[in-house]
Amino acid sequence: MSKLQTAVQEIADEMRARPDRGEVAHYIPELATVDPNQFGIAVVGVDGEVATGGDFDVPFSIQSVSKVFTLTLALGKVGDRLWSRVGREPSGSPFNSVVQLEYERGKPRNPFINAGAIAVTDLILSGHQPREALGEILRFIRFLADDPSIAIDENVAASEQRTGFRNAALANYMKSFGVIENPVELALGVYFHQCAIAMSCLQLARAGRYLAMSGRNPATGHPVINAERARRINAVMLTCGHYDGSGEFAYRVGLPGKSGVGGGILCIAPEKASVAVWSPGLDAAGNSHLGRVALEALTKRMGWSIFGA
Amino acid sequence: MSKLQTAVQEIADEMRARPDRGEVAHYIPELATVDPNQFGIAVVGVDGEVATGGDFDVPFSIQSVSKVFTLTLALGKVGDRLWSRVGREPSGSPFNSVVQLEYERGKPRNPFINAGAIAVTDLILSGHQPREALGEILRFIRFLADDPSIAIDENVAASEQRTGFRNAALANYMKSFGVIENPVELALGVYFHQCAIAMSCLQLARAGRYLAMSGRNPATGHPVINAERARRINAVMLTCGHYDGSGEFAYRVGLPGKSGVGGGILCIAPEKASVAVWSPGLDAAGNSHLGRVALEALTKRMGWSIFGA
Amino acid sequence: MSKLQTAVQEIADEMRARPDRGEVAHYIPELATVDPNQFGIAVVGVDGEVATGGDFDVPFSIQSVSKVFTLTLALGKVGDRLWSRVGREPSGSPFNSVVQLEYERGKPRNPFINAGAIAVTDLILSGHQPREALGEILRFIRFLADDPSIAIDENVAASEQRTGFRNAALANYMKSFGVIENPVELALGVYFHQCAIAMSCLQLARAGRYLAMSGRNPATGHPVINAERARRINAVMLTCGHYDGSGEFAYRVGLPGKSGVGGGILCIAPEKASVAVWSPGLDAAGNSHLGRVALEALTKRMGWSIFGA
Amino acid sequence: MSKLQTAVQEIADEMRARPDRGEVAHYIPELATVDPNQFGIAVVGVDGEVATGGDFDVPFSIQSVSKVFTLTLALGKVGDRLWSRVGREPSGSPFNSVVQLEYERGKPRNPFINAGAIAVTDLILSGHQPREALGEILRFIRFLADDPSIAIDENVAASEQRTGFRNAALANYMKSFGVIENPVELALGVYFHQCAIAMSCLQLARAGRYLAMSGRNPATGHPVINAERARRINAVMLTCGHYDGSGEFAYRVGLPGKSGVGGGILCIAPEKASVAVWSPGLDAAGNSHLGRVALEALTKRMGWSIFGA
Repeated sequence: MSKLQTAVQEIADEMRARPDRGEVAHYIPELATVDPNQFGIAVVGVDGEVATGGDFDVPFSIQSVSKVFTLTLALGKVGDRLWSRVGREPSGSPFNSVVQLEYERGKPRNPFINAGAIAVTDLILSGHQPREALGEILRFIRFLADDPSIAIDENVAASEQRTGFRNAALANYMKSFGVIENPVELALGVYFHQCAIAMSCLQLARAGRYLAMSGRNPATGHPVINAERARRINAVMLTCGHYDGSGEFAYRVGLPGKSGVGGGILCIAPEKASVAVWSPGLDAAGNSHLGRVALEALTKRMGWSIFGA
Repeated sequence: MSKLQTAVQEIADEMRARPDRGEVAHYIPELATVDPNQFGIAVVGVDGEVATGGDFDVPFSIQSVSKVFTLTLALGKVGDRLWSRVGREPSGSPFNSVVQLEYERGKPRNPFINAGAIAVTDLILSGHQPREALGEILRFIRFLADDPSIAIDENVAASEQRTGFRNAALANYMKSFGVIENPVELALGVYFHQCAIAMSCLQLARAGRYLAMSGRNPATGHPVINAERARRINAVMLTCGHYDGSGEFAYRVGLPGKSGVGGGILCIAPEKASVAVWSPGLDAAGNSHLGRVALEALTKRMGWSIFGA
Repeated sequence: MSKLQTAVQEIADEMRARPDRGEVAHYIPELATVDPNQFGIAVVGVDGEVATGGDFDVPFSIQSVSKVFTLTLALGKVGDRLWSRVGREPSGSPFNSVVQLEYERGKPRNPFINAGAIAVTDLILSGHQPREALGEILRFIRFLADDPSIAIDENVAASEQRTGFRNAALANYMKSFGVIENPVELALGVYFHQCAIAMSCLQLARAGRYLAMSGRNPATGHPVINAERARRINAVMLTCGHYDGSGEFAYRVGLPGKSGVGGGILCIAPEKASVAVWSPGLDAAGNSHLGRVALEALTKRMGWSIFGA
Repeated sequence: MSKLQTAVQEIADEMRARPDRGEVAHYIPELATVDPNQFGIAVVGVDGEVATGGDFDVPFSIQSVSKVFTLTLALGKVGDRLWSRVGREPSGSPFNSVVQLEYERGKPRNPFINAGAIAVTDLILSGHQPREALGEILRFIRFLADDPSIAIDENVAASEQRTGFRNAALANYMKSFGVIENPVELALGVYFHQCAIAMSCLQLARAGRYLAMSGRNPATGHPVINAERARRINAVMLTCGHYDGSGEFAYRVGLPGKSGVGGGILCIAPEKASVAVWSPGLDAAGNSHLGRVALEALTKRMGWSIFGA
């Protein structure tokens, strides 16, 4: 067994044994029903090696991890003009705060807080039908993961649509400043559905490979995006990928990552591997508790920190 | 000439020719008198190679770059208990904001905004005389740079002491919550003097080497701090080192760095090099404008980004 | 001519001659088309005397002045339990700020900022059809003014419905904390229509008489509300009736009042008179500029300040 | 016994019997030692009638009630130019908040929050020695109360000087924007001493008479200030006199008032009476709990509300 496979299996075993699991998100009713005792991990090396552990093939709601893929897609469509609509600074406040939006006149701080991600989705929508935009997002993720079976969990989408008042507040607020172009309910509809995409750790780690490989898709060898853009997305993940726990994640794990309230985290070790972990219990900042613990252990054992040997 | 030396010289030449220089800080009167047409750069590789350009040996006021060294020193003295006094999240607000302090009851967000750095200095002071604490800081920086000639610019210290009302507000505010232990005026006195240390780019790059070398001091081979702590300081520099321009710096330069309003930036390419640049003109977020431009050019030419090849 | 009639006419003449008129609100497109050169005033004394000047019988959009009537109506329906849903402190921030809502977990500061008024309207709606709730509000105002011809300007209502994204943000935000009970779009629908009620100064001054008369309706002699509640509504008007210009209005005019972005102000001189003024141009805080100037002149000439002779 | 005297005595008896007393302020150590079971009340009518109850002649620390007298004094010295330095809007935040100061660039919202009162004191100081300024303030209050025995409690002043870090933060913050002209420690020294003036309810009610009498001093018949200024000070007391409980006080008591953390409240019934109450226990907003309850009872029994009969 390779060093990587050994590390992954031992970490999966350790995580399963730990009693501290955080709290499952209940602000989306459908997510509150998920069993907190699950833990999965999948690592896909840039050399093609795959290591998995625990519930690595159980699909979960990727939620905000989808923001990495919609940012990539939107940058491909509109280029750096995206940054006139959305900033790229850490927010210093919770994931759904509206305070910053007021002080910065409707421009979200970065594409990884909810407001910013809705603005990015609005750019992808751009006058099309929601169904088309959603189809494009889904096709893009299936292409990245090389897996046509990836689908949306309609129950989760419907649950969030019924209860996503905070996101509706953010979208309407941005709309009042002209930051959202499409009708608010259409942009929100696409957003709620993209968040409801269900993927397993293995699918997610495969979908994230291009960020570890200078923007190339290993399945085809063709670039998804150019190398500079891949580096820059990684940089935004590092500074903004974990809401108001981004500094903590950088400090402990030392890798770019993006979390979702479904308990998943996509984590990139540049030029080394794409990693996905999943455990539904969250910490106070809304990030997977065991997910972060597992990634801290993995990066330490593998020496993958981007901040030094 | 090596690739590094060529890159450094060409960048120095380009920078000298650029008309856009930002604005020299005038909130410390003594700094407002500095000639904005200066630019210096020094790179010290982990292999010992040294490359310099422009005004690399002109001393300047390191200001907030000193926070890297006092953080290192304080962690050595009090260990991770430091983090109960100071957080490690990006602030999402300007360098001297007091708003965040009110919402988080006097605990500064990170050691690289003014409030956090004053709290760190207070930990170093810890009941000693200001003169002793300041002597310890100065000895530590001289040791890191291997240069006993480094000194404090008393004019700058006096200028800030006369006008540093915002920092006095921050310190008194923290004191009201018990975050500052020593008398406010003593903690501020040490802080103003540490910021007034004058160093050249070459001295600064040499002083920063331990962060590029897993915590070791190349002059002695002995560790200054352990490797994990070096990585973690780099992580905090990445997420918090440029105030409310930290995300932008990570996005453009892709390396940990710490800026000061004197126009200096210390930048770490882990396992590769320690870099110092200096140009007095600042951008809107209070970071050296040409310094950032030069580092972006350097990291691109050398392929040093930590976010991918 | 009585002293009052002389004062009112002279003030109307002075106001028409003044070049400073403020800016007509353009955030509701339909309101932006109103001619800024209009000025009206009507005073209805508790003794029955009526004095009018200028465009006193031209109907205008009462907008937020309607909040006085919906507050009265809601207090009659649900009593002081209303105050568990809405506070009664001045906001210290603009009329449509969302920042305060975040810090106070969705509870609006008072019933006269937009968020608070939407929450009050939601209490009136309370499970009924919007049409019924709106009918009840309209009937109440017609009853107060003793004038069945008062109606809603559907163009204004439709205009605000199309563009009221900021109010939609506030309503969704409160909904996410459970402060709004009905579907957001229903509560907003009623709110936009109540704001679009058109009244002349004379109608408005007549509708406000009960607040100057210890809660009694002079047409019938019957109480609309009891005397204590009338005093308390006046108190909330004094401290909160002019958004972030409430202190200024109290300082200059010295009477309780409530303004609307249509340029109207209802002003109460307790035990003396109900006054309505209208001039479409607004000051920086969103209150009628000439309206306030006229009220300052009137209260001074009549010696009506509640703060002393 | 007059109706007033009966009301005052019965209220004093009721207050002594109540178990709910609020919490004595402990942020100034010297104040924390005061016996919470004290209650005093004194009413001085504009007709000269005096009614007293409970501990009406026990001196207490007037603290922020002093702000009414320094505002009056400063308006007399510099006139309305005072308002370019200090606003007159309610703050919508606690008495010692620094957040608002940051958003409004160092200009305090009103003269009755700490920051605003320090700015007013700085205007009185205006280049003089602290001792002279303090002497002027003390002479003015003795003149108003017609009582040369009023003095400063040096223990309270020293206690606050040792622990007033929050006020030092506010003062330094304003100084950084140029809102404070004198050296910070001098302005603070005068401020802490003015707050430490000790007065009994009777002395305080007598000192406040000019605000109930159109600015005239009944002892001499001469005006202290003109009638318009008296009305305007009353207006600012109404909207801003009880920090973030100002709306509540207006709603319940219906009179202008100014509270202090020593538990005193000066309350003005224009053209009727000047009232002082004292009970050391405070409510959550920092205002005397029983003081407010007593004033609510008094104003109701006497029909003194300015908001209607």
